Amino acid sequence: MTEPLAIETEADAREDEYALDPELVAAVMESVDVADRVGVLALIAELHVADLADLTEQIDSGHRRRFIELVWADIDHELLVELEEGVRDEILAFLAPEKLAEAVRELESDDVVYLLEDLDEAARSKALESLEPADRAAVTKSLAYPEDSAGRLMQSEVVKAPPFWTVGQMIDHLRAADDLPEDFHDIIIVDPAARPVGTVALGVLLGARRPVTLESLMADQFRTLHVEEPEADVAYAFNQYHLVSAPVVDDSGRLVGIITIDDAMEVLEDEAEEDIMRLGGVGDEEISHKVWAITRRRFPWLAANLVTAIMASLVIAIFDETISSYVALAVLMPIVASMGGNAGTQTLTVAVRALATRDLTATNAMRVVARETMVGLANGCAFAVIIGAVVWGWYGSAALGGVIAAAMVVNLLVAGMAGILVPIGLDKLGADPALASGTFVTTVTDIVGFFVFLGLAAAVLL
Amino acid sequence: MTEPLAIETEADAREDEYALDPELVAAVMESVDVADRVGVLALIAELHVADLADLTEQIDSGHRRRFIELVWADIDHELLVELEEGVRDEILAFLAPEKLAEAVRELESDDVVYLLEDLDEAARSKALESLEPADRAAVTKSLAYPEDSAGRLMQSEVVKAPPFWTVGQMIDHLRAADDLPEDFHDIIIVDPAARPVGTVALGVLLGARRPVTLESLMADQFRTLHVEEPEADVAYAFNQYHLVSAPVVDDSGRLVGIITIDDAMEVLEDEAEEDIMRLGGVGDEEISHKVWAITRRRFPWLAANLVTAIMASLVIAIFDETISSYVALAVLMPIVASMGGNAGTQTLTVAVRALATRDLTATNAMRVVARETMVGLANGCAFAVIIGAVVWGWYGSAALGGVIAAAMVVNLLVAGMAGILVPIGLDKLGADPALASGTFVTTVTDIVGFFVFLGLAAAVLL
Repeated sequence: MTEPLAIETEADAREDEYALDPELVAAVMESVDVADRVGVLALIAELHVADLADLTEQIDSGHRRRFIELVWADIDHELLVELEEGVRDEILAFLAPEKLAEAVRELESDDVVYLLEDLDEAARSKALESLEPADRAAVTKSLAYPEDSAGRLMQSEVVKAPPFWTVGQMIDHLRAADDLPEDFHDIIIVDPAARPVGTVALGVLLGARRPVTLESLMADQFRTLHVEEPEADVAYAFNQYHLVSAPVVDDSGRLVGIITIDDAMEVLEDEAEEDIMRLGGVGDEEISHKVWAITRRRFPWLAANLVTAIMASLVIAIFDETISSYVALAVLMPIVASMGGNAGTQTLTVAVRALATRDLTATNAMRVVARETMVGLANGCAFAVIIGAVVWGWYGSAALGGVIAAAMVVNLLVAGMAGILVPIGLDKLGADPALASGTFVTTVTDIVGFFVFLGLAAAVLL
Repeated sequence: MTEPLAIETEADAREDEYALDPELVAAVMESVDVADRVGVLALIAELHVADLADLTEQIDSGHRRRFIELVWADIDHELLVELEEGVRDEILAFLAPEKLAEAVRELESDDVVYLLEDLDEAARSKALESLEPADRAAVTKSLAYPEDSAGRLMQSEVVKAPPFWTVGQMIDHLRAADDLPEDFHDIIIVDPAARPVGTVALGVLLGARRPVTLESLMADQFRTLHVEEPEADVAYAFNQYHLVSAPVVDDSGRLVGIITIDDAMEVLEDEAEEDIMRLGGVGDEEISHKVWAITRRRFPWLAANLVTAIMASLVIAIFDETISSYVALAVLMPIVASMGGNAGTQTLTVAVRALATRDLTATNAMRVVARETMVGLANGCAFAVIIGAVVWGWYGSAALGGVIAAAMVVNLLVAGMAGILVPIGLDKLGADPALASGTFVTTVTDIVGFFVFLGLAAAVLL
């Protein structure tokens, strides 16, 4: 099926090119309602399996089971790999074990690993049994590596050759092979101990004449990945070094598999997504999760925030007499805290990203800390002038304007320092800076904001 | 240079595998200080050009110019493409035009476009003049496409063939060609009007015998990208459909170039980064920017926050008499606002991501809005019980506990609704939901939080 995308001249019309047509989803659900299998199959016939997965996610869960049961025999079972976890689990829960086993047999080894790693013991061994012995061994071995490691991500089907082979030998070997991997972009050159010594890109192989040896065609640089390396590092290496594929080796340096860029790209996307979610104070939720699953996942983040909010309140409570004799303070104090929270969040967002991309290192850390402090001071001064003037005009009190201005300078300065020091500190402690920085930083800016503003007011105004 | 990564058995030791060694950076700066060119070159000899770029970024700007001038003649000038914008601009400002021209001649066409698009008119034409006529034509054409479009991202060097060619003909053609692209993974099959009709993966070509026609080896599915398609959509397509390369076509469907997955991966990373930065209230800043550049970029976001904070203060001011007779309200009111802000941020973070990944669509929008409202209600009730009990215990007033509990339910409910409706609304209006959602949502939760809590207190307690 060759299916070039429709070409439209309006940029606007193109904007939703990749969005699933809501009318298609509605039509599928209607056909499912009347159990019109042929109709459903006709509707989804043109869809790429990734779009079919999106469709399956978008169908409401009432229709989902009937949809899958109607079309299961006729669809590409790579669907299971494309689905988000929540929906996949839902489907695996009702899918007969022999149907799952059948699907597993059709998949590449890295996809099988991805699918099986979340299954419970019983379902996993049932699925493993269905595999050919060689595939079963490869999958079992991969599952023995730590979760989220290169070993889980790699595929064991590798095209390799010794350095002394010629282009002609290599091509003859490939033509004779009956089970080449679906996607491969490089030949891995290995020494007699099966250790990778280089790679030959297929494009280079094809451009060379038959008598040329592979050794002379090897790329200038090549990198191996250790099988227990975290997948986040794998993704980083692909992005940093523009790798297309990379051999995976064990402790003794022997080739055990290969990772291709499409898998690395998915990890890169997942890592960025994880950072975004953690910075936003949400865990590993998915758009298809139900109310209770979401509520439960968000609760701990809100609970942490409640604790810090109560701590800030305790600071305010110290000054309750000041506030009751000068109620304008209650009106104005959230401004100082809010500006500090925002300035701190700006700094920590930049810091968390720079740590993730390894742009913030021991070399430039002191320079960046100094800079963030200066930026906090500079914006603190700018907003001190603005808010000081506003408050002077509003309440007709130069003293009150001066107090809020001074508190603004201090809190934005502290925000800059906390925004950079907290993520660097968490990173040094081995924690994920995206995970907890936000709570720490806003706690600092709230407490400092309230304390300095109210404390100064108590000293100056009363 | 073959340089497999050092293999270490400790996970901790591996953690910083990809981080640049701070001692190396220090050593380079010391050698630069004494203008020891040979010493510097020895230090950087083993570095991948991407790491060399990181090193150049990490050297402080005092040393940077001298470093570049020392090593320029001996390094890979792809360095310019790997650098972040701020540092690149700094270098381009002092690099002699003929040196830039020389560097440009070494690069692939897509890299040249990337480099030239930010140059001013004079520098750009100077650099263009240095190119061979054919390359100059390709680059000029690419620069004529909109910024951040597929046309800017593609490379014009494409390996193409008619469908009736045999594997043998294709291989002979590739062997005879003297300027194959550096990276290519697919042969693009074109019809007589130069329109792509399919692709043949190099791995498949290599596995087939010489008399087989290319047509019979074409991949099941293939996708073309329109030359004016936004690069964000290009990245989405690569990720969604696991593309390795995709032909780019013009309005008439004719092949004009090709985009490979490594370029798409960079765009995907950039897009995720942009979302993170915008959600964190920061613009397009870089870790190497100076104090003033950063201060200026962050100012508008803080200014927007100041306006909304003042609006919230105006709401509090309505109730200043209530507060002065019941100062506990001033102590407690930030808790309600803060919890609302956090709950709203959670929802909008998920919504912004789901919109970016096209998981939130017209089909499931109503369902997701309903769910977020329910989640807000559920967590609102949970935290109402908790904070109600805390406040009752703290102030010994069941009425005050009841007031803050009720305000918590309302504000978390509103936070859920605002958190989902604001990004969906901005998206419908064609705005980037990551850009402004945060400010809108926290404005809503601050104002509602203060108003409901103080309003209820005024009604119930006085």
